[in-house]
Amino acid sequence: MNSFLEIDLNKIAANYRIVCSKLQNTISAAAIKANAYGLGYAPVSNALVKAGCKIFLTATTDEALALRAHNQNIEIQVLHGMHSKEQALELINNNITPILNSTQQIKIYQEIAIQQSKLLPAILNFETGLGRLGITETENLDYEGLNLKYIMSHLACAEELNSELNHIQLQRMHEISKLFPGIPVSFANSNSIFSSRDYHFQLVRPGYALYGGNPTILSPNPMHPVVSLQGYIVQKKILQQAQTIGYGALYQAQKGDKIFTIEYGYADGYLRALFQKGYAMAYNKKLPVIGKISMDLMSLDANELTETEFNEIKYVELLGDNITVDEVGKLAGTIGYEVLTSLGARCKRIYKG
Amino acid sequence: MNSFLEIDLNKIAANYRIVCSKLQNTISAAAIKANAYGLGYAPVSNALVKAGCKIFLTATTDEALALRAHNQNIEIQVLHGMHSKEQALELINNNITPILNSTQQIKIYQEIAIQQSKLLPAILNFETGLGRLGITETENLDYEGLNLKYIMSHLACAEELNSELNHIQLQRMHEISKLFPGIPVSFANSNSIFSSRDYHFQLVRPGYALYGGNPTILSPNPMHPVVSLQGYIVQKKILQQAQTIGYGALYQAQKGDKIFTIEYGYADGYLRALFQKGYAMAYNKKLPVIGKISMDLMSLDANELTETEFNEIKYVELLGDNITVDEVGKLAGTIGYEVLTSLGARCKRIYKG
Repeated sequence: MNSFLEIDLNKIAANYRIVCSKLQNTISAAAIKANAYGLGYAPVSNALVKAGCKIFLTATTDEALALRAHNQNIEIQVLHGMHSKEQALELINNNITPILNSTQQIKIYQEIAIQQSKLLPAILNFETGLGRLGITETENLDYEGLNLKYIMSHLACAEELNSELNHIQLQRMHEISKLFPGIPVSFANSNSIFSSRDYHFQLVRPGYALYGGNPTILSPNPMHPVVSLQGYIVQKKILQQAQTIGYGALYQAQKGDKIFTIEYGYADGYLRALFQKGYAMAYNKKLPVIGKISMDLMSLDANELTETEFNEIKYVELLGDNITVDEVGKLAGTIGYEVLTSLGARCKRIYKG
Repeated sequence: MNSFLEIDLNKIAANYRIVCSKLQNTISAAAIKANAYGLGYAPVSNALVKAGCKIFLTATTDEALALRAHNQNIEIQVLHGMHSKEQALELINNNITPILNSTQQIKIYQEIAIQQSKLLPAILNFETGLGRLGITETENLDYEGLNLKYIMSHLACAEELNSELNHIQLQRMHEISKLFPGIPVSFANSNSIFSSRDYHFQLVRPGYALYGGNPTILSPNPMHPVVSLQGYIVQKKILQQAQTIGYGALYQAQKGDKIFTIEYGYADGYLRALFQKGYAMAYNKKLPVIGKISMDLMSLDANELTETEFNEIKYVELLGDNITVDEVGKLAGTIGYEVLTSLGARCKRIYKG
């Protein structure tokens, strides 16, 4: 398709440096799970390595193995740990550090440690309030055979500055930390990096902020926008008579209306929820989505454009400096994270930097 | 990841045969745009070829060229036509038939026809009421140089049996057809194939129905379900005390609650809109989604399971015979089409048949 997604690797590197500037005696890893939030783990990790990042987090073992095949020199931590002895051996053989989320996962590693007669590097993730993954037993936890690199947990309400649960989780993390003297702690995601140093400990794990999402709650976004999604105009028309636009005939257009059809649809990650809500930008003007979004196409109201603009324009901005990932997420009733991870494979990715 | 998507190619072939059984003196093509609605154009087209399908539709030129590289013998029609002379030449060189949607697109083809001194095969798509792509001029249309294989249009309200617009569009198609005597007509998508033979003409273009979606409006689905999405349980727990689950702490779980964490999230296409609405199936029981859906994980209420079931189970059904693509689409406030095209790349696809 002619629509394309430009990803500015220099901006990702700059965002990593902004994160680091918030830190004191704390190292920043980078979350590049879900194919670096949809932006491509290979180029993104290259850019982050150049910016000084040495530790990367993936969600699954497959992602970790692919990243290891791509780069032999970085430290890789895999958030879901592994689900079998076979997967554990693959991680060990590829020098990947599992994040162990349960006593069952710990046991698998311990058995291998005994068989191989050596300490195995691992991270323990503790449940402190998110209720998703994590070890619930803390006292008398048996972790013999493991060389603990970090202990960690994850906030449920990092986006809410004054959430009581944040303070409870932080308190629990401190209590757990006392049981593991000398073991560094990994705790903060993008939001909590920017909310308070109290959450920083020894290692932070930004993700969304690196990709341009706003990690602060009520403040202007301190990060650089990273993506620019350019929707190609496949058809321009000025209606000769009133008619409806799109499936279900739900938008009534008038005679004389200027309309663009864009080669981009929900199969490319432009969420159908953006019907009656989304807009594109061109010449600093908003072009509202009209009619239902199709699988491969969408329509825009281009009435705001002057005749010259209407005739000259070839692409509209669907995401970028003028319409951010956060804004589109909000319009779709979701979050910018989902906007990023939904970006489809059909749209060509062009990397800058 | 351990979650996996099983795609039954025999069922896709069976669905194609069901479509054909509705036809009389009409040929059925197959829409395999958007990577065969997310299911993989290569295996899907192979299965459809074996079932007797000879004509395939893609949306973009890239898709058409990839499909041609995969199969030299099928007829390929590309819905968006092409956007430049270069793309036109690529289509011509690869024996791909463009669907021309505007007089501008026709002119590009005519110029090449003159240069190459031969008639070029093409299809003309006319705007009859969808307002998306299509030629609006019908009388005195200059199509010299083109060897017209079909003329076509597309319904806006095929899902509504009694929509007045359906009848208007059908009427227009008949009127346009009179201007192109002897040229076969391509008109019906999945829905209109099943609603009435009036829409069939010479070529129909099913898509969604082939992939198991219900093409009838109020009747039980005559198609076979094609996909089975198996969510892997990465953690089972019985809560030792009440706590909240997931981001934002929006679900209050009670002491004794049985909870599964599944290795599948919105980055894999399980739409965040399914929060408070989605469910998985296991042992013929519904396991509701609890808490917000994460990027790589989601949580389920497993209280309905017996102790034995709770202990034995490894996977839950997120899509399949017991929870259809249509149902999940409805729950998410969208359509099954978007559920299919959102299925992420991280989940391994296993093909049956």
